[in-house]
Amino acid sequence: MIRILGIGMGPQHVTPEVAEALRGCDYVVAAAKSDDDPLLAVRRRVCEAYGVELVVVPDPERDRDPAGDAGYVTAVRDWHAARVAAYRAVLEERRGTAGFLVWGDPSLYDSTIRVVSQLTDDYDVLPGISAPQLLAARHRIVLHPVGQPIHVTTARRLRDDVATGQRNLVVMLGADLELDGLEDWSIWWGANLGDPSEELVAGRVTTVRVEIDEARARAKAAAGWVMDLYLLRAPEAA
Amino acid sequence: MIRILGIGMGPQHVTPEVAEALRGCDYVVAAAKSDDDPLLAVRRRVCEAYGVELVVVPDPERDRDPAGDAGYVTAVRDWHAARVAAYRAVLEERRGTAGFLVWGDPSLYDSTIRVVSQLTDDYDVLPGISAPQLLAARHRIVLHPVGQPIHVTTARRLRDDVATGQRNLVVMLGADLELDGLEDWSIWWGANLGDPSEELVAGRVTTVRVEIDEARARAKAAAGWVMDLYLLRAPEAA
Repeated sequence: MIRILGIGMGPQHVTPEVAEALRGCDYVVAAAKSDDDPLLAVRRRVCEAYGVELVVVPDPERDRDPAGDAGYVTAVRDWHAARVAAYRAVLEERRGTAGFLVWGDPSLYDSTIRVVSQLTDDYDVLPGISAPQLLAARHRIVLHPVGQPIHVTTARRLRDDVATGQRNLVVMLGADLELDGLEDWSIWWGANLGDPSEELVAGRVTTVRVEIDEARARAKAAAGWVMDLYLLRAPEAA
Repeated sequence: MIRILGIGMGPQHVTPEVAEALRGCDYVVAAAKSDDDPLLAVRRRVCEAYGVELVVVPDPERDRDPAGDAGYVTAVRDWHAARVAAYRAVLEERRGTAGFLVWGDPSLYDSTIRVVSQLTDDYDVLPGISAPQLLAARHRIVLHPVGQPIHVTTARRLRDDVATGQRNLVVMLGADLELDGLEDWSIWWGANLGDPSEELVAGRVTTVRVEIDEARARAKAAAGWVMDLYLLRAPEAA
């Protein structure tokens, strides 16, 4: 059996139901690009806290710059297939109950459910704190104006989603911030949330843009990596 | 000082950082319509688990059927103002550190941050597991097709959001399901998530509509209350 367990940003977010599931796992499987993969370090801390063995599987390479939406979907599928093969080898050798620890929440821009469902139908999922929730908590905001929707999207889709009328967006999976034309919008930005290198900036885009670039550079210098996300809201939605 | 603490659906979701915050609270304040308010019962269980006193404040009445978007916003504002007054009386009498326990997550369709920010600026927020995450976990799904957005909205806005092109929506705060015209869409529905009365249904809208009505009635009969939400996805988005 496989248990897919959301762990939020680390041990501080491991819920009692996830803790109980972890104690029932024979081992935890984690893919990692290298031994100093920052997400591997988080998983390692969680496994140590609950006395579960961590089995590290080398992460297959992924095409990070595919052409267009179709290319993106194909690149993700190929990468999933390679992960399936890598995990299958471990699971067939070890058997028992395996845990997969998902950084954040398994329901949001994470491949674990799609990958595991190709391995077996004998799995369950427990939720974890997601990055947009921690972003909102740190900035002490609700993610939407009263009664309005939240559009959760990716940096590569931001332009299209704004063009089709979205005025309140959580943007994930970004690399460089591309905010031209949104100078009068408000932004609530965060990087490396939950890590000692965490950075937060909020304000009008035009006012805080340079400040965000500087904070992003600081987070990267402090941690050796940077993952950021942000809420964008148009003036008329505020 | 006030601490706004997300508790997910109950004790099983209270994170270590929320548990630590709770232990540091002098008391917890909760508004309740009546002594058998189901959300009061959840807060009571959490307070008992961490040995914190629960101070119950009668919840002001709210206009549940306001006219139009402007009427909705006004009704919510009036209700917030009444809550602010009720809480202020307790906080001024008691002083110390007060906790506010938010069912689910404070960043999503919850008034606590907006209400507390009118009382003081000396507060912080910790996230909790939200209902859409638990819905996704129970159905073992990711909330979006690969690389696509998720539009989180309310039942009263569903029609407008579909009309403006949304094809993958999490719908919250519903009363009756109004799914006419969406018969060929897929739905992943859940009620009373995390409670013993929990119900789940998934399938094509046309196929499972009656089943959902029956499950909703079952949840209400078992618990005495029902709160449901669902993910809707158009065939072309799947």
